[in-house]
Amino acid sequence: MDKNILGTNIVAQVGILVHDIEKTSQVYADFLGVEKPRCQVTGAYDEALTEYMGKPSKARAKLAFFKVGPTLELELIEPDQEPSTWRNDLDRYGEGVHHIAFVIKGMKEKIAVLGRNNMPLLQKGEYPGGRYAYIDANEDLKVVLELLEND
Amino acid sequence: MDKNILGTNIVAQVGILVHDIEKTSQVYADFLGVEKPRCQVTGAYDEALTEYMGKPSKARAKLAFFKVGPTLELELIEPDQEPSTWRNDLDRYGEGVHHIAFVIKGMKEKIAVLGRNNMPLLQKGEYPGGRYAYIDANEDLKVVLELLEND
Repeated sequence: MDKNILGTNIVAQVGILVHDIEKTSQVYADFLGVEKPRCQVTGAYDEALTEYMGKPSKARAKLAFFKVGPTLELELIEPDQEPSTWRNDLDRYGEGVHHIAFVIKGMKEKIAVLGRNNMPLLQKGEYPGGRYAYIDANEDLKVVLELLEND
Repeated sequence: MDKNILGTNIVAQVGILVHDIEKTSQVYADFLGVEKPRCQVTGAYDEALTEYMGKPSKARAKLAFFKVGPTLELELIEPDQEPSTWRNDLDRYGEGVHHIAFVIKGMKEKIAVLGRNNMPLLQKGEYPGGRYAYIDANEDLKVVLELLEND
């Protein structure tokens, strides 16, 4: 395997799939002793340009974030019914951890290098001010990775 | 639910179950661009006093830690064949994320409060300088929690 592929070893997010984000974010807020955050919704296709398994998808998700460290967030994710890694994994494995995320620079190059290292792209998309990619690193790292690049 | 049960909202570890810790810790070391850490082994029963589902267990695990943030570690876990939440979940769900951990004070009280809040104890044990407990928070938080208390 190529060494230090991402150029960082700081985990920025742990993503958790849920069926009902309003309910589960209230439970997390109580559990952590914080205000319930406002849920965000990922962009429609013309903004997010979501691709899942190489094909355009209208998939969207509701998101809620909790600060759980100086550089770490828990991210709750409630996907809609359109094709996505979120929907696939929620249907297949149920609620629970979906990915760990790293903030990187140079998305295209990182996706290419990961692909050559047995870690193929699952899904990618845009968000205001940046872009993300989910990477299937299950075989080697036993997790799905998310790359986040902010402009 | 009682509010701010743990008295902290800092996630200290993300625990990942693996079949072969020597192999996977080398992959993580390469991926993150760090030295492969030396694997540790949890104590034998007379030291660890492991209880799983309310019964003593001889279970032990090999552990390897990677620093992935100012206050965050990834923990790889390769369990032996004795009864444990590690072995159960590895057999049942395969390799992947097992828990998120918080450092707390007052283990007995925290376990009691969590139990009253629909988050029962799965497993507990001792390690040099402290003790841990795994809590089934799957129904409400969609994860297994680990509590760590250091003296």
